[in-house]
Amino acid sequence: MRTLVSELSGRIGSEVTLAGWVHRVRDLGKVCFVILRDRSGQAQLVFDGKPEVTPETVIRVTGDAAANEKAPGGVELRVKSLEVLSPAEVDLPFPVNQDPGKTSLESILDNRMISLRNPQILSIFKVQNTILKAFAGHMRGEGFTEIKTSKLIGTGTEGGTGLFAVEYFDTKVYLTQSPQLYKQAMVASGLERVFEIGTAYRAEKHDTPRHINEFVSLDVEMGFIDSEQDLMDLETRILASIFAAILETNAKDLEAWKASVPDPVLCAKIPRVSHDEAKEIVTKETGKKVYEITPEGERTLCDWALAQAGIEACFVYAYPRKSRPFYTMPAENNRTRAFDLLFRGLEITSGGMRINRYDQIIENAKAFGLDPAGLADYMSVFKYGCPPHGGFAIGLERLTQKLMGLASVKEAALFPRDRKRTRP
Amino acid sequence: MRTLVSELSGRIGSEVTLAGWVHRVRDLGKVCFVILRDRSGQAQLVFDGKPEVTPETVIRVTGDAAANEKAPGGVELRVKSLEVLSPAEVDLPFPVNQDPGKTSLESILDNRMISLRNPQILSIFKVQNTILKAFAGHMRGEGFTEIKTSKLIGTGTEGGTGLFAVEYFDTKVYLTQSPQLYKQAMVASGLERVFEIGTAYRAEKHDTPRHINEFVSLDVEMGFIDSEQDLMDLETRILASIFAAILETNAKDLEAWKASVPDPVLCAKIPRVSHDEAKEIVTKETGKKVYEITPEGERTLCDWALAQAGIEACFVYAYPRKSRPFYTMPAENNRTRAFDLLFRGLEITSGGMRINRYDQIIENAKAFGLDPAGLADYMSVFKYGCPPHGGFAIGLERLTQKLMGLASVKEAALFPRDRKRTRP
Repeated sequence: MRTLVSELSGRIGSEVTLAGWVHRVRDLGKVCFVILRDRSGQAQLVFDGKPEVTPETVIRVTGDAAANEKAPGGVELRVKSLEVLSPAEVDLPFPVNQDPGKTSLESILDNRMISLRNPQILSIFKVQNTILKAFAGHMRGEGFTEIKTSKLIGTGTEGGTGLFAVEYFDTKVYLTQSPQLYKQAMVASGLERVFEIGTAYRAEKHDTPRHINEFVSLDVEMGFIDSEQDLMDLETRILASIFAAILETNAKDLEAWKASVPDPVLCAKIPRVSHDEAKEIVTKETGKKVYEITPEGERTLCDWALAQAGIEACFVYAYPRKSRPFYTMPAENNRTRAFDLLFRGLEITSGGMRINRYDQIIENAKAFGLDPAGLADYMSVFKYGCPPHGGFAIGLERLTQKLMGLASVKEAALFPRDRKRTRP
Repeated sequence: MRTLVSELSGRIGSEVTLAGWVHRVRDLGKVCFVILRDRSGQAQLVFDGKPEVTPETVIRVTGDAAANEKAPGGVELRVKSLEVLSPAEVDLPFPVNQDPGKTSLESILDNRMISLRNPQILSIFKVQNTILKAFAGHMRGEGFTEIKTSKLIGTGTEGGTGLFAVEYFDTKVYLTQSPQLYKQAMVASGLERVFEIGTAYRAEKHDTPRHINEFVSLDVEMGFIDSEQDLMDLETRILASIFAAILETNAKDLEAWKASVPDPVLCAKIPRVSHDEAKEIVTKETGKKVYEITPEGERTLCDWALAQAGIEACFVYAYPRKSRPFYTMPAENNRTRAFDLLFRGLEITSGGMRINRYDQIIENAKAFGLDPAGLADYMSVFKYGCPPHGGFAIGLERLTQKLMGLASVKEAALFPRDRKRTRP
């Protein structure tokens, strides 16, 4: 019967079997200390003489658990028998047991199969797991239904630019940029409140620490809302749930990156400023007149929000009409009911209230130079009765990146895809 | 403040506002009955005279909730004011309020945006939502970590056949058939126990009620197992959790299809027969000597299991080596440690113990005619220490299909993709 490392301190005085990876070997001649790593943590093994193991060898050991205040966790295992379950060759391409901060991002990603074994790197994905759990849990708690929609579409809702083409039997289809069309259809189907966790694709040639070409989108769509304020309220509650779950579950993982998660209580204080106000704030804070919210402006707004509200996050709403897709609900003065959420200097959410009336969506599609006939499936959602609704999407990797304080969003994807990277 | 239909019976004697879709209109001249549909159910509205609404119009109504034993749920709303939130044109392409059994599958899928509004059709996806919830909840409860891996790979693990090609900037990549490579890597990363809910693709030209080209795979991979029996034990527990959750949550949805879910207690009794035994059983049951387990044989085995164990499910293990991928752990007599789960006559799971030692996986790849050099990323997982492990995948749509008693798996996908269908 296997014991996990995390259970070892409760077994002092007993014979115990552990299994895991050799993390480190320290040979002192007469005795040899081996740090064993399993999914729950690390433990010190004590051998008489040097065992035939090298880093990353998978072993099973049986011995006596004994108190030792110098050992990690105050307990060690005095090994009586060793079994090698899987040997490891010695030419490790990545130093698993060392500080990954000393290795380049290229090397970490090129050797992803092995670099993920580094406990600090792996901790990113323990936090990501908590985000996934907390997001889904929160949505279900508010009566949302989880949906799974196709990632292959015949034509792009917003034209064919930015889409990856797929050779599909004798025809060509595209990878979806978002489940936008489908989540709106599912609100109109009668589910009213839906969420989806799925991959999304952007065939953009960006090569920045903010961009990856395949990402996981946490999508939300909600019917019978009164305005985009309802959506910002909803996202506020979602973020509070996610932050609370991470604080409860991932203290060690945060510590590994010296990362901090905002107090969930502060989510309700996230400032909401219109796009015009946002430009004024950036102008005032930087002393430079701005006409657009640039990435630098996003950082300025988050700094401003921190000073104002104690949280580095800011909702920006009332975006100009021309900067938002045709399905966005217009507002007065050529503005829209769309919003973004900026968090720690980065846009992590885009969303808004959508047009829900057929005549209006047809008219707006035309105003954007789109042919409604090419969007017949999408238009049918509105033709036959669609409630007022809206939604948003949170980029899972961007949220993870910002929570962990990572330099690049690529570090927050297990197997990131960028313009040049298609492996491993 | 909106009240849901499901809350109406608790509001008798009060003024209440409901919102939703016009499901049916019954005009009796002096009074008109309108059935309103929202995400929680259907309610009868009573109007003096005929309101200006047609089926699928989205409305908000305020009135007095009154007891009426002839109304559905024993309560109706006597309407005092009506607001049309979104009109519906009258040329509905699909009769939302009628029995979908009278419509062809082609018509249901061609008009998917509207046919999903049919309550019976939509109920399939309420059950699917429960499956997703129960699966993830069960996995987390057993210490599994949720992962999200890339769906774009440079080369197929099992060669390029059956893969859809994607035009990726200046190169070509493929849509993954399964997260096999990645989930094994994540066991070896130290997470030990992982699960993933993601899309998978098969570029197969099948056109049958059992096949779709894009599906949702419920993937599981577990380290430190002793044999494939541990995996069948795990799947047994997962299915029991899923069945229990559906029975608790979806009574009305099951009733809509006259569907039944097996008693969760019976999952532990699912017979486990070797591939050789399975052939003997089919031979004996049908009186015809069989050499392969065909789809007809799968149905026979499930009938046999029902008679034996009270549940239409059967594990088949010890598959011949030649019928399983190269990474499958071999067993004596050219058999493997692979298994399938058949449920109600259909294979819903494929899985098994995997090879975890580098020398053995290299040797087996060669025996299967594969070049290990082309699989270098995958092979590195084993080169540097990989615990004994195995896993399986449950096809979400197939499980949904069989639980609901649907004729085609296509009915169990919101927006199915088959050889000819790429819309809506």
